[in-house]
Amino acid sequence: MKITYPTLFIIFALCALTSCKEGNKIDIKSESEMAVAKFETKNALSAWADAPKKRIIDWVTAVTTEGASDFIPVADRIAVFDNDGTLWPEQPVPNQAQYMFDYLKKEMPNHPEWQKDAVLNGAAKGDFEPLKKAGMIGLMNLIDKTHTVQTEDEFEASVKTWIDTTMSKKYNRPYNEIVYLPMIQLLDYLKANEFKNFIVSGGGADFMRAFAEEAYDIPPYQVIGSYGETKYEVIDGVPTITKVSGDVYVDDKAGKPQAIHRFIGKKPVFCGGNSDGDQAMMQYTSSSKYKSMCVILHHTDGEREFEYDLKTLSGHLETALVEAKEKNWLVVDMKNDFKTIFNF
Amino acid sequence: MKITYPTLFIIFALCALTSCKEGNKIDIKSESEMAVAKFETKNALSAWADAPKKRIIDWVTAVTTEGASDFIPVADRIAVFDNDGTLWPEQPVPNQAQYMFDYLKKEMPNHPEWQKDAVLNGAAKGDFEPLKKAGMIGLMNLIDKTHTVQTEDEFEASVKTWIDTTMSKKYNRPYNEIVYLPMIQLLDYLKANEFKNFIVSGGGADFMRAFAEEAYDIPPYQVIGSYGETKYEVIDGVPTITKVSGDVYVDDKAGKPQAIHRFIGKKPVFCGGNSDGDQAMMQYTSSSKYKSMCVILHHTDGEREFEYDLKTLSGHLETALVEAKEKNWLVVDMKNDFKTIFNF
Repeated sequence: MKITYPTLFIIFALCALTSCKEGNKIDIKSESEMAVAKFETKNALSAWADAPKKRIIDWVTAVTTEGASDFIPVADRIAVFDNDGTLWPEQPVPNQAQYMFDYLKKEMPNHPEWQKDAVLNGAAKGDFEPLKKAGMIGLMNLIDKTHTVQTEDEFEASVKTWIDTTMSKKYNRPYNEIVYLPMIQLLDYLKANEFKNFIVSGGGADFMRAFAEEAYDIPPYQVIGSYGETKYEVIDGVPTITKVSGDVYVDDKAGKPQAIHRFIGKKPVFCGGNSDGDQAMMQYTSSSKYKSMCVILHHTDGEREFEYDLKTLSGHLETALVEAKEKNWLVVDMKNDFKTIFNF
Repeated sequence: MKITYPTLFIIFALCALTSCKEGNKIDIKSESEMAVAKFETKNALSAWADAPKKRIIDWVTAVTTEGASDFIPVADRIAVFDNDGTLWPEQPVPNQAQYMFDYLKKEMPNHPEWQKDAVLNGAAKGDFEPLKKAGMIGLMNLIDKTHTVQTEDEFEASVKTWIDTTMSKKYNRPYNEIVYLPMIQLLDYLKANEFKNFIVSGGGADFMRAFAEEAYDIPPYQVIGSYGETKYEVIDGVPTITKVSGDVYVDDKAGKPQAIHRFIGKKPVFCGGNSDGDQAMMQYTSSSKYKSMCVILHHTDGEREFEYDLKTLSGHLETALVEAKEKNWLVVDMKNDFKTIFNF
């Protein structure tokens, strides 16, 4: 799905425009905390309520019991998960959008040319009116300035520092700790049953890879996301990959099964998601020759997390719920089905 | 590396134009033979001569001995291998080019419109003069007709059938058995030492994935190659990925380290290749913060395999040999360093 209008970042930006003033201000901690939550795997799925827990365990048992009619060979146990809203929160703005605004603010002094740009200057100060007016061109420029003209190492270091040291106002924790405990337990449980877990998310692949191994125990080559162009050069004898302007592959909607084909090359048998953007990869998963399972998180808990479905741009959930009924996908009511949401 | 002139297929076609008449005719076996060679792993690297064997074992020992100064954590043990000319032969034409010609011939009766096309009709009959004259446009059309307007399942089945049943004239074996035993031993040896093996090849990813799991024990999500566009549609209720015309990503030269960034997201510590097309990913591997190793196969054995380096388009080896000396990459003289080349 190569597109000229990158849906992903429209979503990011529109959320920013509509929600950023309400909260999510950030504090920078003086010291990096490497306190990635470590989760117990002994009591598999202990953060889940009984009913959804039973359904997951029943399916895993059916497909991993050798000799059973629904047995899936280990080589075909492919599980795919969306990230934003599925493994960690995406409200009030996706974390990667917050990263963009913070990056702009931090780098502004080093870029006098940005200070003359109303959109960039505004976004860095929390004024999104110029961005609104500039529309797609302004938005693309914002994405470009925050994600390119950086080597792969520079970008990774920048994201790592941000995620280790930036505190979410709502939770007063660094972002890499604010991950859904029941979903981490699910990743662990599947892995323990010899599934291979992949992230297939609209978020930037390079952005997610900077923390996914530590936060989710998912290595970079199992992290599939949106991505842009790069350049390879030997600079002063040093082979260097630089992120550059160009086409962006948006790993959302139909782009998800297409990316699964491109990056994984096998049809998944398990899919976890939370929005209409995940619907195509759930359809694709459901068409497996094996007995498959799809899980949709419905964000119903405004107190412990966020409550949203129809009235949000990031994580809009509507048509996938209809298909979930038809195809018997497991819809998780986060308020009632998650005993605990976070590990704090 | 998104390019308008896909180097890979130029190579394929030029090889075809220059070499096809010399041999490599194929016989179709009446029954599929699933006789994929199984190799012993007890005597690691037994098909290698002592000197290169020692060098490989010394390096693996150095980087896998906990507490040693050159120790590489398991998570960072990424090994990348070219395919054509590195894991299996690429002369007199790369196997994928032979697949294209055979596919054309087989499908010609179903496509009256192809019969009117001098290039397609010629190539199917072994007459490459029209293709020569048509140049790039004719070539792109040939690639397009043999690789697109097929679902992912149809293409996979087509390649699998071809590779299981088509015999190489030189070896009188199906192509999936004609793989280099010393390299299979090397893959096994690295895997046994907790390396993750990836193919990073100019060949088509979808083409290689159809046999790599069986032939090399490398799953599809560790097979990186050239790839084109796809389309996702639900057709009569069935989610379907179709290979379609469009841009082609050519996983060769600078495209290799770029693909490693895109697909793996970690810098390799081991690289195996055989041509100048692998030079960039060897440079990239050599720039690892860890003690890395690069191995170049030099095709010096015209009797047991093929002898070539400068005077071939597929597998041209020249500048990489110069850099190999500078950087102390291991150059394998196949005639003397491979005790056995194939497992038959």
